[in-house]
Amino acid sequence: MAKKPGIPKGTRDFSSIEVARRQYIMQTIRHHFEHFGFHPIETPSFENLETLMGKYGEEGDRLVFKILNSGDFLSKVDEALLADKNSLKLTNQISEKALRYDLTVPFARYVVMHQNELDFPFKRYQMQPVWRADRPQKGRYREFYQCDADVVGSKSLWQEVELVLLYDRVFSTLGLHGVTIKLNNRKILAGIAEVIGASDKLIDFTVALDKLDKIGEDGVKKEMMEKGIEAAAIEKVQPLFNFTGSFEEKIEKLGKLLAESEQGTKGVEELAFVGKEIAQIGLSTATLNLDVTLARGLNYYTGAIFEIGAPATVQMGSIGGGGRYDDLTGIFGLKDVSGVGISFGLDRIYLVMEELDLFPVTVNASSRVMFLNLGEEEMSYAMKAVAQLRDAGIKTEIYPDKAKMGKQFQFADKKSIPFAVLAGSEEIQHQKYTVKNLASGEQQTVSLEELKTMVQ
Amino acid sequence: MAKKPGIPKGTRDFSSIEVARRQYIMQTIRHHFEHFGFHPIETPSFENLETLMGKYGEEGDRLVFKILNSGDFLSKVDEALLADKNSLKLTNQISEKALRYDLTVPFARYVVMHQNELDFPFKRYQMQPVWRADRPQKGRYREFYQCDADVVGSKSLWQEVELVLLYDRVFSTLGLHGVTIKLNNRKILAGIAEVIGASDKLIDFTVALDKLDKIGEDGVKKEMMEKGIEAAAIEKVQPLFNFTGSFEEKIEKLGKLLAESEQGTKGVEELAFVGKEIAQIGLSTATLNLDVTLARGLNYYTGAIFEIGAPATVQMGSIGGGGRYDDLTGIFGLKDVSGVGISFGLDRIYLVMEELDLFPVTVNASSRVMFLNLGEEEMSYAMKAVAQLRDAGIKTEIYPDKAKMGKQFQFADKKSIPFAVLAGSEEIQHQKYTVKNLASGEQQTVSLEELKTMVQ
Repeated sequence: MAKKPGIPKGTRDFSSIEVARRQYIMQTIRHHFEHFGFHPIETPSFENLETLMGKYGEEGDRLVFKILNSGDFLSKVDEALLADKNSLKLTNQISEKALRYDLTVPFARYVVMHQNELDFPFKRYQMQPVWRADRPQKGRYREFYQCDADVVGSKSLWQEVELVLLYDRVFSTLGLHGVTIKLNNRKILAGIAEVIGASDKLIDFTVALDKLDKIGEDGVKKEMMEKGIEAAAIEKVQPLFNFTGSFEEKIEKLGKLLAESEQGTKGVEELAFVGKEIAQIGLSTATLNLDVTLARGLNYYTGAIFEIGAPATVQMGSIGGGGRYDDLTGIFGLKDVSGVGISFGLDRIYLVMEELDLFPVTVNASSRVMFLNLGEEEMSYAMKAVAQLRDAGIKTEIYPDKAKMGKQFQFADKKSIPFAVLAGSEEIQHQKYTVKNLASGEQQTVSLEELKTMVQ
Repeated sequence: MAKKPGIPKGTRDFSSIEVARRQYIMQTIRHHFEHFGFHPIETPSFENLETLMGKYGEEGDRLVFKILNSGDFLSKVDEALLADKNSLKLTNQISEKALRYDLTVPFARYVVMHQNELDFPFKRYQMQPVWRADRPQKGRYREFYQCDADVVGSKSLWQEVELVLLYDRVFSTLGLHGVTIKLNNRKILAGIAEVIGASDKLIDFTVALDKLDKIGEDGVKKEMMEKGIEAAAIEKVQPLFNFTGSFEEKIEKLGKLLAESEQGTKGVEELAFVGKEIAQIGLSTATLNLDVTLARGLNYYTGAIFEIGAPATVQMGSIGGGGRYDDLTGIFGLKDVSGVGISFGLDRIYLVMEELDLFPVTVNASSRVMFLNLGEEEMSYAMKAVAQLRDAGIKTEIYPDKAKMGKQFQFADKKSIPFAVLAGSEEIQHQKYTVKNLASGEQQTVSLEELKTMVQ
């Protein structure tokens, strides 16, 4: 017997119930993307190698899955590299395509390639899998979906306002209440760096500051000094160690703290605008929080930075994030196209919803009705009802083989099908159907019209 | 300036309208799959190389896209193969994963791997992309979607009946009327081969017979003889040269012709069953046609063979196909699991629907309403209406920048947005909104409630 087959590590098979639940999340996100004026695009699963390489740093280059050229891929290879077994340099010679690593670089490529067909500002969403040759671990896969919405071609801060509303609406609809939409701004971070006079220590500073809750003010200061940040610099940003209060209060504190930094002041203004407009419009179930320790994507974000914290009742990292980048398409030669976008972390949202038991029971993979197979003539009779039920929008299946009735009932039960229908000679004679509610065991003989209503 | 980027040959970017239309087709197929009791599964984009190799013939092996191992992939390679530049033999040493080539082999792998969790008969559908390193040409891509529904674990012919109904319902809902569901049976072909005493000539025979309309009886017979089929053998199947009439009449002719072939007679019985039941239940817009020249998948199909012909008004090959295979999972060590399945050719269905102009106008990528940006205060006022419209299920976007009104109207127009809304100081004062129908140019000032109704 052949070896029982497996799948590559870091990849997953999805069962019917898992697909149904994933689709439910994606449909909800899609619904709101479209209601906010984002339109879908799709790009190929693989791009030219040169499109992807050099865009994600050295580590990223390594994690991009390369596709081996077809045919006699070694025929034109540099013999010296071969003899050297130089894997790194040989890669370009035997591979010219690679699997998408994220949706952002392909999107930038798309915008540049199709710039003459697009109307700017261009709002697109994209929900497709990406692949990374990362070491798999709990919650980290080599194939996973990204769900992104971005606007390019407008510097308007109303986009940031819209994206906060969008996050709120998606999580509210999913029943995922109590998420925190953390907001920061690259210019605030630049301002802080300016004030402490150590822009190269910015990450160390924010990482340490983020531990305030855990290790206290003294602990944080100790860590900062260990990282080489001077005591005098830390003193200058003392208000950050007691950085509490409402969004407006935080804005006020920051305004004073960063008053002498032009960039910082600009950042405060931007945050203030978003905060004020969101306060006026109102959020359904999410909370907007100004978080100066939020420092994701420092290499590319130039304005707003977003991150979504799961409800406090679950242990989970961020379930979404995004930000504004002033030069997305510059890497492909199209300058000065500002963009801002957000992403939803499908896998983590799934885990949180599972843990909080938030999937509606209607999101499942079951038929509503199963017709038992009592023989050829009986099935012929049943099939007309089957067709009518389906046309009425009722998910209906038949048991294909003439097996024992017990076995057939058991099958329906195992698959959580709520209703089983039987039609034997008696039923055929009276043009009726016997329907059994598999949960209650209750059984009734009814007309086709009655049947439709009962199982709806 | 950087070189303008491109995408790998044989792949495609999909614009918003294309994604919307593809989703419309896929949603329609999905709807009927689920109403017929099929449930979704998804498998990883790449499988272990050994799972795929040897399953599609030598040509297929060549067309499978292999993924280069990560890291120092040359370190453990056989030096002699390297020195030899033996691409073929080296492949296994530098690649252990490959992109899915179809959905059938991964499905077989899934069934074997998860056999203990599944209830048989197991009905699954799968709609995912597949990849082939084929030479790209019109209508043939290196990345394309397959939409498959299969049942495994039942030999019941009711499945064949169900699959014919399923095809009919999907194409009827898509408005694609007049498709032909061609039906044949591997056992009929075996019977014909038996009768003509030349099973190795079966393909030559069916290919020639298929040209009857084009080259006439004499032409077909000439071609058959050129292929080495004897005149006496051809004489024995003379009824196939005038193989017209209804499904029932064809069954009768075949019954006589294949009376002495046990296999052929079995095939006639199977076809007769499907034909009779379909005649009783009725099809909406498709026609079931017995086609003895249909010989696809001879390597794996063992019973029914399906193929869908596009409506006669368009020039297009088959837009779907399928059949029964008695031993799908044998390749992975699980014997005697009979299956039957069908596939929808998404790309071709798309082309046919485009040619026949069958996409509903409501399938588009436009917002319903755009709010103009007249300034910060005006936008603040507008945003509350925007949120309410969206919550009422109306796709609503805002123009993000305070540009000239003409430019903003033009933008809405280009994007085929039907309604533009303005709110200036006058409107704010009276708590109203001015809505302009961009097609008629008509303009009205209304309350928020009236606005909702107008643009619904």
